[in-house]
Amino acid sequence: MSKVITSRSEDYSQWYNDLIIKGGLADYSAVRGCMVIKPYGYSLWENMRDVLDRKFKETGHQNAYFPIFVPKSLFEAEEKNAEGFAKECAVVTHYRLKTDENNKGKLIVDPEAKLEEELVVRPTSEAIIWSTYKNWIQSYRDLPILINQWANVVRWEMRTRLFLRTAEFLWQEGHTAHASREEAVEETKKMLEVYADFAENFMALPVVKGVKSANERFAGAEDTYCIEALMQDGKALQAGTSHFLGQNFAKAFDVKFADKDNQLDYVWATSWGVSTRLIGALVMAHSDDDGLMMPPRIAPLQVVIVPIYKGADSIPVIDAKVQEIMQELRSKGISVKYDNDDNARPGWKFAEYEMKGVPVRMAMGMRDMENGVVEVARRDTKEKQQVSIADIGDYVAQLLEDIQQAMYNRARSFRDSHITRVDTWEEFMETLEQKTGFIAAHWDGTPETEEKIKELSKATIRCIPLDNPQEAGKCILTGNPSTQRVLFARAY
Amino acid sequence: MSKVITSRSEDYSQWYNDLIIKGGLADYSAVRGCMVIKPYGYSLWENMRDVLDRKFKETGHQNAYFPIFVPKSLFEAEEKNAEGFAKECAVVTHYRLKTDENNKGKLIVDPEAKLEEELVVRPTSEAIIWSTYKNWIQSYRDLPILINQWANVVRWEMRTRLFLRTAEFLWQEGHTAHASREEAVEETKKMLEVYADFAENFMALPVVKGVKSANERFAGAEDTYCIEALMQDGKALQAGTSHFLGQNFAKAFDVKFADKDNQLDYVWATSWGVSTRLIGALVMAHSDDDGLMMPPRIAPLQVVIVPIYKGADSIPVIDAKVQEIMQELRSKGISVKYDNDDNARPGWKFAEYEMKGVPVRMAMGMRDMENGVVEVARRDTKEKQQVSIADIGDYVAQLLEDIQQAMYNRARSFRDSHITRVDTWEEFMETLEQKTGFIAAHWDGTPETEEKIKELSKATIRCIPLDNPQEAGKCILTGNPSTQRVLFARAY
Repeated sequence: MSKVITSRSEDYSQWYNDLIIKGGLADYSAVRGCMVIKPYGYSLWENMRDVLDRKFKETGHQNAYFPIFVPKSLFEAEEKNAEGFAKECAVVTHYRLKTDENNKGKLIVDPEAKLEEELVVRPTSEAIIWSTYKNWIQSYRDLPILINQWANVVRWEMRTRLFLRTAEFLWQEGHTAHASREEAVEETKKMLEVYADFAENFMALPVVKGVKSANERFAGAEDTYCIEALMQDGKALQAGTSHFLGQNFAKAFDVKFADKDNQLDYVWATSWGVSTRLIGALVMAHSDDDGLMMPPRIAPLQVVIVPIYKGADSIPVIDAKVQEIMQELRSKGISVKYDNDDNARPGWKFAEYEMKGVPVRMAMGMRDMENGVVEVARRDTKEKQQVSIADIGDYVAQLLEDIQQAMYNRARSFRDSHITRVDTWEEFMETLEQKTGFIAAHWDGTPETEEKIKELSKATIRCIPLDNPQEAGKCILTGNPSTQRVLFARAY
Repeated sequence: MSKVITSRSEDYSQWYNDLIIKGGLADYSAVRGCMVIKPYGYSLWENMRDVLDRKFKETGHQNAYFPIFVPKSLFEAEEKNAEGFAKECAVVTHYRLKTDENNKGKLIVDPEAKLEEELVVRPTSEAIIWSTYKNWIQSYRDLPILINQWANVVRWEMRTRLFLRTAEFLWQEGHTAHASREEAVEETKKMLEVYADFAENFMALPVVKGVKSANERFAGAEDTYCIEALMQDGKALQAGTSHFLGQNFAKAFDVKFADKDNQLDYVWATSWGVSTRLIGALVMAHSDDDGLMMPPRIAPLQVVIVPIYKGADSIPVIDAKVQEIMQELRSKGISVKYDNDDNARPGWKFAEYEMKGVPVRMAMGMRDMENGVVEVARRDTKEKQQVSIADIGDYVAQLLEDIQQAMYNRARSFRDSHITRVDTWEEFMETLEQKTGFIAAHWDGTPETEEKIKELSKATIRCIPLDNPQEAGKCILTGNPSTQRVLFARAY
């Protein structure tokens, strides 16, 4: 095997990078903090996008596209939002380059092409979208507006990591406008459910649904709902957010509507998004020391078949049988690749597809063929089975479903065994350091205490779970009374 | 009818804008030169994208994603390319905003957050991609690389028009790397065929396939192949380009490969792209004074059904029958909407869907229903027909194909009747001014003459058609000898 992956126990962070790079998902680029999403990674993103896009459309949303630039005066209109993102903004100040007179062949920014007003490269699109919605909304008949956008956004992060935190990333952002608070809150919750369903049933990623504390809320939101996942190193990862924005953006951009009684009121808003960050979550939730592990329902490739040739005579015989099998699998909607590249040995290929996390690998040799069977190996458990070729289509279809379920179950039991209830600060710190994972603990409900806990422990409140049981207790830090436990963790 | 469209004869340019805005394809934005693509327009783009994406994948390409920013030093590496785009570059110079101390609540660019090296917002991605390919290519075994990217790009245009010329637009850009000149040229031509096939068979847009003259070539290309279409005002529009880049970018970024004999050589390149500009072409090739006209194969909506209620009793009866019809149409893969909004009258709806260019409209009243028929109107010819409900699925499926073909035929005969052969400068100018369209004329082959003709007439060489007949003649401007006619036109 030519590509060696660092093991999790040796260096978890390097293991992650190795999987991304050597598994062919992404690469570093010449631009600080920006990555190149390679074809295998992009194909995964396309599969994720297609599922989400279908769900968005089924829930009544349409796609549209808004400008990548936000004039500074619009950007600063909603003050909290502006303040929250100001430190991460890439800013376009000029619209032309010119030849450097002192250094021919080189270009310099043309000082005469300075923009009158700087343009912010969108870190999120509320400002540009609500400045547009203002023109689209007059009366309740124009509502709701249910729009989603697939786009790139830029947030200038100081410390970046492939997929998890990059200066540019791809995402979708839903932006909806409603005639009432109730309807907007309902939309916010509905989209959280869409995300949770997607994470659990397609990414095989168990998530906790909850609400953020004020400190962790999206800048400009009244409430941020989220799904939180747990990675194999016991750190949490925010996998998606859905914001109830109240009337904040409508007020900032003066977007009012006339209701049925012709009374004017500000419009209610939501926004919600998931990004290529989810790919980082997928990698860290499911992979092992041999490589990636793709959930079958969104895997770029579900099945690979490797021939084990024995002499030139065997080539056409095996190839012909494999074609039959591929046809059978494709007729069931299964994606399959035949890797009969004669430059690589079967053992190398096995390792390569394990690294890439292809859920099912088949090896086809002469002896097997004569016996009417084929060797089927599953990526997750590494189990191998001789399977009758006559039954192969049904077998593989079922196996893919089994793998999907098994991956979810494994991640779920890891997650469930890493939610720890603690009642004292000592237990809290010890659990954080030793066992890791989510910690369900009492908190007095104040931003100050949350901030203090973060300073002392580097843990944050990941969420207040939905339908959280109410329970009297004492804050782990201050001892002040508390009405419920919230979930803490160190997080990506 | 509430929305009035300016007629073509009155003001062609205003007619075009009216269609885009009132037809719901796009809207102006708060950012100079950038547009908002509205849901109806974006749905059209999605349909176009899906067809193209399938064709790209069928021809062996994979999608990937590269950073939106190009560091200036990379951008200037291929000099011709850099020179060609330098004047249109939006440039990021800073990465942070901060509160204006003199004006609380306002933000200013933080002078301390100046980038060491400016970042160009990609006007095209050759530079960033070839700086990446350098790391991916060592030997002929790494070739070819066949990658496409769907992305936004920014070209700072002084005069902008919705879809046709916007500061930001959406496009796809293919970037391939090959081991030989022949293979790269073959790829360039293959993708031109893909574009031509898409334009003609999906957009119903007849195109001339050709090669650009040196003056009109893509900056950094050895040859630019193109498809050229004709708009209803007799102006040409470049609908897609496919560039043979030679070894220019490989040399600029030092990308070499070892061939089978272990000899090092520079890699050969192509790039090819089409953009949201195609939507402008679609609008101007097919629409009329009543609105847009969508080719059925890519129409966001193919069929709309409008009920003609007669009293409350008729509502459930008509609704039930329409549900049956919709089910029948959908079972044939036809997209259909039932517009039973009771806030609008049928006449208003008819005008609205004509404006939006929905290919087929059905109107269902009580009398029709009792007779077992429904009124079917086609958008292109405005013809109406009573059609038996029992046959409706097959009838509409065939009608959509007929409309697709008829739209192509109409555009084709307009285009064909607007290719004029002229042999003198007087005829040339007269044809340009009076008849308009493509002009097939002799040209002496020099860039100087081409430039002079452009100055005098505002016409450019749109292309030298592929398989152009060789024919001795004299240049219309200089009288110098010429070996073939080329196609001139004024163009968008």
